[in-house]
Amino acid sequence: MEFSIRPATRDDCKDLARMLRVCEPSILTGCPYIIRTNLSLRNLEQDGFRENPFFHAFIAEVPEQHKSKDGYTKIGLAFYIFSYSMTTSRTICLQMLYVMDEFRGKGVGKALFKKVTQEGVAARCKLLHFKVAYWNKPALGFYVSQGCHDITTERGIHLMSLTRHAMERLGQS
Amino acid sequence: MEFSIRPATRDDCKDLARMLRVCEPSILTGCPYIIRTNLSLRNLEQDGFRENPFFHAFIAEVPEQHKSKDGYTKIGLAFYIFSYSMTTSRTICLQMLYVMDEFRGKGVGKALFKKVTQEGVAARCKLLHFKVAYWNKPALGFYVSQGCHDITTERGIHLMSLTRHAMERLGQS
Repeated sequence: MEFSIRPATRDDCKDLARMLRVCEPSILTGCPYIIRTNLSLRNLEQDGFRENPFFHAFIAEVPEQHKSKDGYTKIGLAFYIFSYSMTTSRTICLQMLYVMDEFRGKGVGKALFKKVTQEGVAARCKLLHFKVAYWNKPALGFYVSQGCHDITTERGIHLMSLTRHAMERLGQS
Repeated sequence: MEFSIRPATRDDCKDLARMLRVCEPSILTGCPYIIRTNLSLRNLEQDGFRENPFFHAFIAEVPEQHKSKDGYTKIGLAFYIFSYSMTTSRTICLQMLYVMDEFRGKGVGKALFKKVTQEGVAARCKLLHFKVAYWNKPALGFYVSQGCHDITTERGIHLMSLTRHAMERLGQS
């Protein structure tokens, strides 16, 4: 199948929002669980497309004649950020890899993932990291086949989080 | 015990490097496993103390009369970065919380952690997140007592990583 991958621009925000809001788990998603993103179109425009953007994205696109049943030509995305670690310095963090259901199994997810690794190398990142849910076995298998390590299984590392509400409570205690 | 907590400055880099290089697991460390940081003094100065720094840190300090056996007055640190998530927008990520052995059990770690949560609230972060090793039960217990969620246990989320070498290999495949 013919498709191309390119960096997202401000004009892609509507399609980014559409794809980021999908709730179907994707075989190739970097997303750990069913997504209910709170990012609005305005958030995306402000946070991703200005000087020093908070996030970056690649868009997978098909030619007009191969558009989806619903008429979309932008059919996949990789959403990522640059980060920093005290053990490795600069890192790249994949937050979501998504391909619309009807375009799966054609190498789009693999090409998006590869593009992110190339971006990481170009930006001198020493590590790519992301999260995957335990039940998403096809995704875990795919990523391991690409050379990834499952740090939770291998080293027993737990992810912890504190909500804004709990941060406020603690800060005032 | 008398101590104060303040943002780290460029002059603290030597002490940051000293404390970041410790290999003893700390009861209050946010660090998931034994640390062998590759960050040099130069990395720390360049990456943390310029415009748009990659990381931030708080230093815990005791008065001269309470200095450590080895003569240090800077006795703890919290090393953190700002990040971004497609589900919550801006987040704060704690990378290490460390208190020198002889100063533990006196509230320094708790005060450093609280300071990070206050910083997160001030920067409008919706989530604080970090990693803890499965074997670090005192740390897991401490963080849960502070209102944190153990996302790996609660939702089965696995941390994945791809090294620079594997990124290069994949990008060239």
